[in-house]
Amino acid sequence: MPYQHRIDRCLAERPGADGTGIAPAAVAALQRRTQAGIDALAAAKRDDALPLLNLPERTDDLERLTELARDFRDRFDDVIVLGTGGSSLGAKTLLALADRGFGPAPGAPRLHLMDNVDPVTFADLEAATDPTRTGLIVISKSGSTAETLLQFMTLWPRLEGALGRAGAARAVVAITEPADNPLRRLAGRIGAVVLDHDPKIGGRYAVLSLVGLLPALIGGLDAAAVRRGAAAVWRALIAQGPDSPPAVGAALAVAAAEAGLNQTVLMPYVDRLGWFGFWFRQLWAESLGKQGRGTTPIRALGTVDQHSQLQLYLGGPRDKLFTLITAPSAGVGRVVARAAIDDPALAYLADHSLGDLLDAEARATYETLARNRRPVRLVALERLDEEALGELFMHFMLETMLAAHLIGVDPFDQPAVEEGKVLARKYLAGEG
Amino acid sequence: MPYQHRIDRCLAERPGADGTGIAPAAVAALQRRTQAGIDALAAAKRDDALPLLNLPERTDDLERLTELARDFRDRFDDVIVLGTGGSSLGAKTLLALADRGFGPAPGAPRLHLMDNVDPVTFADLEAATDPTRTGLIVISKSGSTAETLLQFMTLWPRLEGALGRAGAARAVVAITEPADNPLRRLAGRIGAVVLDHDPKIGGRYAVLSLVGLLPALIGGLDAAAVRRGAAAVWRALIAQGPDSPPAVGAALAVAAAEAGLNQTVLMPYVDRLGWFGFWFRQLWAESLGKQGRGTTPIRALGTVDQHSQLQLYLGGPRDKLFTLITAPSAGVGRVVARAAIDDPALAYLADHSLGDLLDAEARATYETLARNRRPVRLVALERLDEEALGELFMHFMLETMLAAHLIGVDPFDQPAVEEGKVLARKYLAGEG
Repeated sequence: MPYQHRIDRCLAERPGADGTGIAPAAVAALQRRTQAGIDALAAAKRDDALPLLNLPERTDDLERLTELARDFRDRFDDVIVLGTGGSSLGAKTLLALADRGFGPAPGAPRLHLMDNVDPVTFADLEAATDPTRTGLIVISKSGSTAETLLQFMTLWPRLEGALGRAGAARAVVAITEPADNPLRRLAGRIGAVVLDHDPKIGGRYAVLSLVGLLPALIGGLDAAAVRRGAAAVWRALIAQGPDSPPAVGAALAVAAAEAGLNQTVLMPYVDRLGWFGFWFRQLWAESLGKQGRGTTPIRALGTVDQHSQLQLYLGGPRDKLFTLITAPSAGVGRVVARAAIDDPALAYLADHSLGDLLDAEARATYETLARNRRPVRLVALERLDEEALGELFMHFMLETMLAAHLIGVDPFDQPAVEEGKVLARKYLAGEG
Repeated sequence: MPYQHRIDRCLAERPGADGTGIAPAAVAALQRRTQAGIDALAAAKRDDALPLLNLPERTDDLERLTELARDFRDRFDDVIVLGTGGSSLGAKTLLALADRGFGPAPGAPRLHLMDNVDPVTFADLEAATDPTRTGLIVISKSGSTAETLLQFMTLWPRLEGALGRAGAARAVVAITEPADNPLRRLAGRIGAVVLDHDPKIGGRYAVLSLVGLLPALIGGLDAAAVRRGAAAVWRALIAQGPDSPPAVGAALAVAAAEAGLNQTVLMPYVDRLGWFGFWFRQLWAESLGKQGRGTTPIRALGTVDQHSQLQLYLGGPRDKLFTLITAPSAGVGRVVARAAIDDPALAYLADHSLGDLLDAEARATYETLARNRRPVRLVALERLDEEALGELFMHFMLETMLAAHLIGVDPFDQPAVEEGKVLARKYLAGEG
């Protein structure tokens, strides 16, 4: 598997009274307990009770998605994806492989993943897009997400005005559960294509489904490779059991929480993984943060956060577990010629590239955290492409599900957010 | 002052044994102790020992900056700002008022704030910009930030190749301390303009100086208004003392930390304040995270993080203080006509706009957090413009400095990050 998973710098044979270091015996005991969780996952896969576990090997659905993506690429300059949380973060993470803020890959439309309801942002979006050349993908698993539905109903009249009912309908694809629901009815009345969101795959676990892969295909990415990467991690889980990286990671995370570390920092040293941190943050928080349990996921980015958060990470309270993610960067980029540096104080940068510096900084942060007895693990990718991203997605989904098994919570529900939804409806109705 | 600061939903006369609620008496006692901190700040302002406190009233430097900005707007299609941490986050926050991801304001160049050294991102940047039409602002207070210097030395040969030495030098402005340093020498050899970074204003407190305001002016914003807003908050601090919003906020934050809440979540319900959370995150972490003290700042965004983090916030451990920031949004945006909604399940959205929903969701989250005995305060802006942003900057800088006074740490240093810098240089040199 093209990633290395190192936890040795988290461990201390004699953990300090101040909570520094995690006892290897505690991790090992939890690792053994993951076997029951792995068995349960394997059974759920066999019975298709957790269809997300069967997605990695599926290819039957990719032809249809590839066709749809080609059609969107042909017809549109802009594609707007409406959806929030799990309907947005997986696709954002994937698309960062292709578009790093300077425009889409050649042949791809601009993709706008709209996950908020700020009317000022929406006015900008409308000003920046031509409704006769804009496709719309509307994603809501339940079909009743207020934000997503109001986004769609806000944009629809403009689209219909520009293209007529039938033309506008051809620009829209809705993704929702098969069961009757408001989005499905709305799309049906309009005459738009509706694709099924598997009811047994929650939003935060949906990145390997059409929810993540349709936008990725429109952006020009290789969806089959994403799934191949995910499949490799599943195979490693089954082959290595409690010694597989996801099981070790889950044991480490739970041991850290039990040692009093209530925060877990994910810090990739690659801009293309900047959104991966946000994707992980939802996965970890919603899956484990219940019954007073769970730890707070924190998204960081190297080297940027060395100049923002590292002082706290090293000098503040010992309440965090750190995970650094690296991809090969040494040797990447143009070197600065020694002859061009006419300054002894800068000689250390001579003959080096930005990639060399990124690599040295990642190593230095890893070492400095460890030397200061801050538990730090390393996920070192051998390369960064669709397959590697598929591996990362699967690693962290499995790690999260196994951690939920260890602490005894249901990783698939999110019961606490219902109260706020009800209140928001009341306020909209002018009550209270 | 056009913001309201409410902390009543954080307080509990009888805080729970589980750490729920903060005792009003604890906050009041800490508030009284802020008076000494306020006096110290007022003395530092009089002596110009903390020049950041005199920036709000300054206008003498704005003419030169405005001229420079006009020149950059006239000559360039793209302006690249090289700098990281405090040399980047203030400007990013300000520019989000003008550019929300869909391109710059009319008449402004595209601004690229490059705060990382990822060579892949830099290749994109070069492909997307024409070196004959690109300005460069290089910001490093010390003049020796490895990332920023290598960024500059990587881009310089291309600029020089396109425009010749003299022409390329005219496209560059460096901002650094007056004392001799590598960036100053480099800019001198090239023949570029060098502007002084006040040596007594640390990066994370520099947003009201040219570091934040020059990029903001290039982006078309009103720099004088930002300072006016900041000045109003200073006046309130002096007039109201321990009862002023920054003093109350500092007392609340420290009381929360003493009650065992080791995380502080800042959650604006406005896309334009999305970067404000990142700016605050550096300010709080670097200023207070030392000697084992400090709390972890967490950047969230409403409504997006309702679909990612709210489950954890409500159902997870009670270890967080919450601050919601709102700006008027009810009534903003096009309403969805009742006649267009042919579905009883969606009737609650009829006659409402995206802004109505944003407003209702913010109120619902505030109320839900409070009902679940999660301490939540509210910063409610009466409007969101340059002046309001200046108020927010000053509020949180003062709150941070006063919190540092209360817990007894120096808010202006960051001693822990030195070790990693030394190691990175060693690794670059091939040692270790």
